[in-house]
Amino acid sequence: MIDNSELKLRRDKIRALMEKRDIDAALITCNVNLLYTVGRIVSGYLYLPVDAPAHFFMKRSHMPEGNRIHALRKPEQISGMLDAMGIAAPRRLMLEADELSHTDYLRLAACFPQAKIENATPLIRQARSIKTHYEIELFRRSGIMHAWAYGRIPSAYRPGMTDRDLSIEVERVMRQEGCLGIFRTFGQSMEIFMGSLLTGDNAGIPSPYDFALGGEGLDPSLPVGANGTPLRAGQTVMVDMGGNFFGYLSDMSRTFTIGQVSQKVIDAHSVCLEIEEEMMYHAAPGTVCETLYDNALRLAEQHGFADRFMGTARHAGFVGHGIGLEINEPPVLAPRMKQELEEGMVFAFEPKIIMPGVGPVGIENSWLVTSDGVERLTPGAGTMVPLG
Amino acid sequence: MIDNSELKLRRDKIRALMEKRDIDAALITCNVNLLYTVGRIVSGYLYLPVDAPAHFFMKRSHMPEGNRIHALRKPEQISGMLDAMGIAAPRRLMLEADELSHTDYLRLAACFPQAKIENATPLIRQARSIKTHYEIELFRRSGIMHAWAYGRIPSAYRPGMTDRDLSIEVERVMRQEGCLGIFRTFGQSMEIFMGSLLTGDNAGIPSPYDFALGGEGLDPSLPVGANGTPLRAGQTVMVDMGGNFFGYLSDMSRTFTIGQVSQKVIDAHSVCLEIEEEMMYHAAPGTVCETLYDNALRLAEQHGFADRFMGTARHAGFVGHGIGLEINEPPVLAPRMKQELEEGMVFAFEPKIIMPGVGPVGIENSWLVTSDGVERLTPGAGTMVPLG
Repeated sequence: MIDNSELKLRRDKIRALMEKRDIDAALITCNVNLLYTVGRIVSGYLYLPVDAPAHFFMKRSHMPEGNRIHALRKPEQISGMLDAMGIAAPRRLMLEADELSHTDYLRLAACFPQAKIENATPLIRQARSIKTHYEIELFRRSGIMHAWAYGRIPSAYRPGMTDRDLSIEVERVMRQEGCLGIFRTFGQSMEIFMGSLLTGDNAGIPSPYDFALGGEGLDPSLPVGANGTPLRAGQTVMVDMGGNFFGYLSDMSRTFTIGQVSQKVIDAHSVCLEIEEEMMYHAAPGTVCETLYDNALRLAEQHGFADRFMGTARHAGFVGHGIGLEINEPPVLAPRMKQELEEGMVFAFEPKIIMPGVGPVGIENSWLVTSDGVERLTPGAGTMVPLG
Repeated sequence: MIDNSELKLRRDKIRALMEKRDIDAALITCNVNLLYTVGRIVSGYLYLPVDAPAHFFMKRSHMPEGNRIHALRKPEQISGMLDAMGIAAPRRLMLEADELSHTDYLRLAACFPQAKIENATPLIRQARSIKTHYEIELFRRSGIMHAWAYGRIPSAYRPGMTDRDLSIEVERVMRQEGCLGIFRTFGQSMEIFMGSLLTGDNAGIPSPYDFALGGEGLDPSLPVGANGTPLRAGQTVMVDMGGNFFGYLSDMSRTFTIGQVSQKVIDAHSVCLEIEEEMMYHAAPGTVCETLYDNALRLAEQHGFADRFMGTARHAGFVGHGIGLEINEPPVLAPRMKQELEEGMVFAFEPKIIMPGVGPVGIENSWLVTSDGVERLTPGAGTMVPLG
């Protein structure tokens, strides 16, 4: 069970950013932000003053009332309840404007008619982007469990399977090893079941979603990932599942081969490993995100794979992304991203190349930014693993 | 593949509601609403005038441009592109205010500075609540596949399993039978993986989510469903998975027994079947939703199960809910709901009783409102099924 000092540490990280912007209080109600600040998914509102203890106002009484935990029916009660406790009304209040629906935002803003409203989302995402020791430990455990589950993939393979068949078995293995299954994303540009398994030319089919690789999917209602392609000799298979074991999404991809693949495929995979190694040597606090992308693209170009790097018909505009309670957090390792890495950030790095007629090759691991470099959170070799 | 006449029918249902409110055009961009009006998940904006053909503005060129399909980079281009096509600017435009983030809403509204903005969400949800013949056919197929998968549950059971173990096997069976896995909800009051499997006293543990039953879950980051309870003789197990085979969420629960259960448990289950039968006789176009809830609660009371009906520590405030592309659509079968059933609506009806120390009993099926009654979409007996 998460203890109060950890929660206070997280809230204080948000408070420090509020103070810089002269914000008096935050009202937090979106699921992942409550998970971050309260330590579990709850239904209600956390009122977080910049310089005083937080109060939680609970809807649907699913927890006992207690110290600074109050039951309510509707958010319109909050300001009166604060007033009754002698807590001054906020002059500048922040609400989760990038996450709340417009209707919910207006409703909450109307509960504090005297307050100027600011956007809480970028501040909370910034606070969340620097992980605490506790969060890092959960990520380390998640990475180990994720890698352990991937180790079982070869024994889940049977000749004659389609990509869908193998995906179902990999999902089961992930679940058996403790993956909660749910895959949380920020915004609505990404939807996926547990992750993707791609082989052959399906890997190059563009998806409407903002994932590194696409895939046609099995139905127009979820056009991403496996599409029923048979797994045949000469193909590669990339497994890219979200590793949600404790709420934190570790991200990891491994390439598998069926039968013999050509030297060119082996070379392309080696280029991805080289790109990862290059990142390992450069990434540290202060590294500018775009340089990691630029270095990756330059290496892909030098080896003649630029047109297949991160897609064929369409190329993903990034080579890595921050991870945490959601799969798409800051920072983004992409062109023109001037943000610098900071100690405590966790990101996924996923150089991938698509080989026409064969499938995707490459690697993805999750990385922690340490005081002087990066630490890998998802263990295990990056070499291609034969199936069958 | 969905044809254009079906899509035009759906858009015309929305247009008819727009016309009543004197709205000139809708700008639709949220995933499920695009799935409804474009026939697949796409990335972009559907501009839907009340009295002229729709245009789709596509981000991330993942589809070929074509007749009324235009590529763009950002929504600020839309009004200029409409103008260039000689399409008049809207006076009253509707945006998905209950679904768009506040930030996205403001951005889109600013693209049409001369327009008065209305809320599109209730209108589109109302249009979506009356299913077309095509959608009904998908629901019928979904219900059959859902029931077929449930038929395999007894053979997935092994003595010594926990609720989590069996849930993983049921998830696999659902996926093997074609379930896409993803579980779409409206708003942020519900999050779940594929569904829930509840046994013993875990079934009565309140969850922060708005599901009929709760469960502690396996982690504070997803407090719903199975919690690792061993499956032992004398317990009941309720399986309630979302059946997303074609984008439409059929909803179905069945009760399983392990070893012998008491006569009182059997009686409680029979009461749920009686409540369902009562609903079958009353539900038809014109039936007021609250009466179906009131009848259900009255029967539970008459048989002495009121305190265990739809929960113990906390009681769900409904006995059924509309289903479609999301699990929580109109209508809601709940107290004070004066809405009347209409032909073409599809809803889940789920009378459930929790037996302390044993687990949940009851039933859930998906129902179509026909011209003179209801048609069951999820076939198969409602009797309790022994495991092992």
